[in-house]
Amino acid sequence: MTKTRVLTGITTTGTPHLGNYVGAIRPAIEASQDPGVQSYYFLADLHALIKAQDPARVQRSRLEIAATWLALGLDTDNAIFYRQSDVPEVNELTWLLTCVCAKGLMNRAHAYKAAVADNESSGSPDPDRGITMGLFSYPVLMAADILLFNANRVPVGRDQIQHIEMARDIAGRFNHLYKGDFFTLPEAQVDERVQVLNGLDGRKMSKSYDNTIALFSTEKQLLKLVRKIKTNSLEPGEPKDPDGCTLFQIYSAFVDRGASDAMRQRYAEGIGWGEAKNIVFETLNEQLRAPRETYQALLEDPAHIEALLRKGAERARAQAAPFVDRLRSAVGLGRFV
Amino acid sequence: MTKTRVLTGITTTGTPHLGNYVGAIRPAIEASQDPGVQSYYFLADLHALIKAQDPARVQRSRLEIAATWLALGLDTDNAIFYRQSDVPEVNELTWLLTCVCAKGLMNRAHAYKAAVADNESSGSPDPDRGITMGLFSYPVLMAADILLFNANRVPVGRDQIQHIEMARDIAGRFNHLYKGDFFTLPEAQVDERVQVLNGLDGRKMSKSYDNTIALFSTEKQLLKLVRKIKTNSLEPGEPKDPDGCTLFQIYSAFVDRGASDAMRQRYAEGIGWGEAKNIVFETLNEQLRAPRETYQALLEDPAHIEALLRKGAERARAQAAPFVDRLRSAVGLGRFV
Repeated sequence: MTKTRVLTGITTTGTPHLGNYVGAIRPAIEASQDPGVQSYYFLADLHALIKAQDPARVQRSRLEIAATWLALGLDTDNAIFYRQSDVPEVNELTWLLTCVCAKGLMNRAHAYKAAVADNESSGSPDPDRGITMGLFSYPVLMAADILLFNANRVPVGRDQIQHIEMARDIAGRFNHLYKGDFFTLPEAQVDERVQVLNGLDGRKMSKSYDNTIALFSTEKQLLKLVRKIKTNSLEPGEPKDPDGCTLFQIYSAFVDRGASDAMRQRYAEGIGWGEAKNIVFETLNEQLRAPRETYQALLEDPAHIEALLRKGAERARAQAAPFVDRLRSAVGLGRFV
Repeated sequence: MTKTRVLTGITTTGTPHLGNYVGAIRPAIEASQDPGVQSYYFLADLHALIKAQDPARVQRSRLEIAATWLALGLDTDNAIFYRQSDVPEVNELTWLLTCVCAKGLMNRAHAYKAAVADNESSGSPDPDRGITMGLFSYPVLMAADILLFNANRVPVGRDQIQHIEMARDIAGRFNHLYKGDFFTLPEAQVDERVQVLNGLDGRKMSKSYDNTIALFSTEKQLLKLVRKIKTNSLEPGEPKDPDGCTLFQIYSAFVDRGASDAMRQRYAEGIGWGEAKNIVFETLNEQLRAPRETYQALLEDPAHIEALLRKGAERARAQAAPFVDRLRSAVGLGRFV
């Protein structure tokens, strides 16, 4: 275990869209190919239960997201790819950490505080109205996700930095209380250059704005959606500004600098929106055709995905189980012989 | 599974004393012999971590308490006797329940509220000072202990009734959200006739008063401790009042009505405290000699205890694992095939 260990959790709610792909999935899959890194990718399905209490949706999303990452080329021989719920050591470690985690730490978690603020601004007499213990305590689960594999780095968005700090706090407290270097303190890895894609209406592409283009839309849907991308009313022949144009931004996320510059030139020359949209569609479709086909084939073969994930869970547990055994002994829950 | 299921958790901190024996262990072992009942006894060692962060003490206590129950005749062929920490399904179910449990429910838990009140009365600006997530959230773990086996009855002291009500609340919420009769609502079984034993100083026998007589004291220690039981200064020959007398109370807890009445008569006749203490010692020693020897032999054979507990955990898991599988499918965490 001398390689740097990098751990990435993948939330399993919803269907991946182009924004997820460009901002998170594509760079993560590229990073997984670094031979100097042992990477862990897991479907964070225990976390999914906090927000989603629709079993069919949770189940479907887990399958789709697993198929998405596999179709896009996640190298499961190199990376350890597993479902969180297949690794009971995650839950076991969660309890050990729960016992050393200060309640005050959770009181200060952003997601919890935001929920309380919502209640207060809506005039609820109960600041905890509608808040579950899942929402309140999930940073402990997240700490367990990370610490179980002693991950060195956790790539996260800015909004997740606090969770990594909490994992460090809990890890440090455990190390101190039980007098040992059990846990490595993880580092948040925030990529400032992360590409954010806009959606159909020009706002950030996000399920909550209902402005997404599903990554593996069918060809027909993809064409329809690209045609719906909001543009202005300039006619063909009138020069257009690529900066701030969603269509141009999406295009640029899928092509190299040369092609992007060429399109910039076409904008200056007054390309019509219809023609521009056709080019964007063709470009996306070209790149997504092969993984889309793989994705569809995978969805039709859930047994294959199941087998891959089980193999990943076995690899994860081969590391996690002896580690949790060691931790149990450290806290006084060892075997008698 | 048509038998009534009765579940008893045994806290694994400290060394059992006569008060634990008379008030809890003896009636529990008698109850376990009821052929109409499937009983579950578990060493609540995950709970022990909330209070005890001394690994050697936790480890020792688990062994001693297992040996105690076995030495006193717990029928492990009939009862399922296991360590909580050997059943990972407890932790898995805990998370499923955590996601449906309202935070407000935990805010109202007695143990948490008492800790907050302590902080407030000591003038701490932080009401949650020193409170861990373990202390805050353990009623969810306790609900998982109970619901994992769909226990019908849980024998508890009055102070524990709230926990059973919380387990019912959480169970009901899960059944409702996931549209099924997954969980039986457990009933608290409060035995109003529970025998409370006083300790050396005449207050309730309790580790926190440092007034206990360890159940498996050596013969020498037992004699010494019985001689330390507080009596008054009446001389031999002066009539004595058995009511309110700790020595008489302890004696009565170990003999039948006839012997108790005979001692009452001796008190009226002015038995000397020295003689009375000798009789009490002899009586206790007589009854405890055989289990004490078994206890010592068991402590010297931890492998035997380990094997028995592992067998118990296997029986527990044979029920728990398929049940948790079913629950996972119900919430959307099922396998893909």
